[in-house]
Amino acid sequence: MTLDEILKEIKKAKTIVILTHESPDGDAVGSSLAVKLILEELGKKPDVIIPEYSRMFHFLPSAEKIKTDSEIKKYNLAISVDCANFKRLAKNEYFENAKKTIVIDHHGSNNMYGDLNYVNPASPACCEILVSMAEYFGIKISKEIGTCIMAGIITDTGGFRYMGITPDTFEYTADLIRLGVDIPDIYKKTMGTKTKANFELTKRVIDRMEMLEDGKVSFTYITSQDELEVNAEPGDHEGLVNIGKDIEGVLVSIFIRQKEEENVYKVSLRSEDGINVSDICLLFGGGGHSRAAGALIPGTVEEVKEKLMKEIKKWME
Amino acid sequence: MTLDEILKEIKKAKTIVILTHESPDGDAVGSSLAVKLILEELGKKPDVIIPEYSRMFHFLPSAEKIKTDSEIKKYNLAISVDCANFKRLAKNEYFENAKKTIVIDHHGSNNMYGDLNYVNPASPACCEILVSMAEYFGIKISKEIGTCIMAGIITDTGGFRYMGITPDTFEYTADLIRLGVDIPDIYKKTMGTKTKANFELTKRVIDRMEMLEDGKVSFTYITSQDELEVNAEPGDHEGLVNIGKDIEGVLVSIFIRQKEEENVYKVSLRSEDGINVSDICLLFGGGGHSRAAGALIPGTVEEVKEKLMKEIKKWME
Repeated sequence: MTLDEILKEIKKAKTIVILTHESPDGDAVGSSLAVKLILEELGKKPDVIIPEYSRMFHFLPSAEKIKTDSEIKKYNLAISVDCANFKRLAKNEYFENAKKTIVIDHHGSNNMYGDLNYVNPASPACCEILVSMAEYFGIKISKEIGTCIMAGIITDTGGFRYMGITPDTFEYTADLIRLGVDIPDIYKKTMGTKTKANFELTKRVIDRMEMLEDGKVSFTYITSQDELEVNAEPGDHEGLVNIGKDIEGVLVSIFIRQKEEENVYKVSLRSEDGINVSDICLLFGGGGHSRAAGALIPGTVEEVKEKLMKEIKKWME
Repeated sequence: MTLDEILKEIKKAKTIVILTHESPDGDAVGSSLAVKLILEELGKKPDVIIPEYSRMFHFLPSAEKIKTDSEIKKYNLAISVDCANFKRLAKNEYFENAKKTIVIDHHGSNNMYGDLNYVNPASPACCEILVSMAEYFGIKISKEIGTCIMAGIITDTGGFRYMGITPDTFEYTADLIRLGVDIPDIYKKTMGTKTKANFELTKRVIDRMEMLEDGKVSFTYITSQDELEVNAEPGDHEGLVNIGKDIEGVLVSIFIRQKEEENVYKVSLRSEDGINVSDICLLFGGGGHSRAAGALIPGTVEEVKEKLMKEIKKWME
């Protein structure tokens, strides 16, 4: 059983680092901190290294202990959470240099890049995997661990709304509420609050929304100039990706966001049943889930749109 | 026990009508249909009369049987669901003329206008009350009843996000998923889909957003002219009320919507802790919950704004 081996490695390790993917979302930050807190219950003192993340997550227990770097160069053990491949792992040099590596994830596209890999694509959030992991380790989930876990579940399920949620998701949530975890508070802080910058970006995204292919595809964008103008901070683009998806009749939504000053766009595709956007993103060297995937594509707004539409049209036929 | 008396009246009645409030939301339509289906399990053939509601709810089981009126003028029994007072009850002449009346609701401001009143303000949705009611009546909840109930719970809790959700809410949901109720589908249909008209109204609401009192109050509006221009149908204003509430730092959000062609606005207030918007709305003859309330106020956009701000400022001090 992988969990036994994982527990053995954790117990053996003197120095442990926890890492997650670039542009970390709630599930990435929540998983990192939940694993940290679970490992502390096992008597360990792991480091969490996340170079940049939204201040939206500052409220999470132990967030103040997140490091942007470390003086330890070779950890005994590196644990990657919520990250499908080595390339997307932020500060992956710590993973590369570690003696042993563990991958804990829920992405179907995970390519098992650790010495030990605990990947469950049936889980709607990496954080949900940690509930059973903690149980298996004999760790009682505290209000603090539960708060980190719920941050991941709430954000990765879009607030309990996406495919993949199960009775378990709701039962874990009921249990966590009984432990004192405040769902409306986490929801408000992670999903229910628009910063002023995010509100201004929303305005632009809505004003620029284009309906293509008879309304089956929506397209919108923001540039790095937009982000400069509204003083955007990391995380201020959260939620923009969903605006086009929710318009009636849309089967695929495209949201593209310019990478700082470069002629490259971060593409986010979302879809309804039938169209596997992960396959489309794979064509551009990206990946993700069948209904939510991403890639990096060079070009201007118009060029990126054209490249994407060429592929998406093939799926529409 | 009120539920025993309610069951007795239901069993006795030959003709039953189910009514709910004007501008019915998901909890109103969901409760009406769930009560209809529960009563059918008891061998009854109740009518649901709702004169106007969003086509968003057409997917609900038995929605096709909703009547806009009835040839029966004096029902043996009228049941009002999710409606705090007689005045807001749509087609309340059927309630007035009925031999016996029952009120089932979860609004704290409910003024117990029925012969029998089953009101539980601790419940986050009227639909959630129906779960225990069905159990008490010995009715097994079917997938169809469960779908109507979940539509109410999902919409009235803003997708499991508002205060008032309890472990019960999540456990009922887990049970309903096991019965085959499709949460992502209901979520998508009730909360996750913006009609084109709703999208156009959203654009206007965002463009007109004003931040008052140092950003503590947000104000925006739509006119009946707007609704004409975008071909709005009933329900196309759903969700607009929350746009201002979610902006960082906002304690009270005001959304006003002109009543057809008249010089009167439907006011919707939403608040964060501390400010009881139900009390503010009561001053204008309205009511609701402490964090979500409404009223009708005559005047122009500017006049209504001024009247409201005068009262809201008192609470800000």
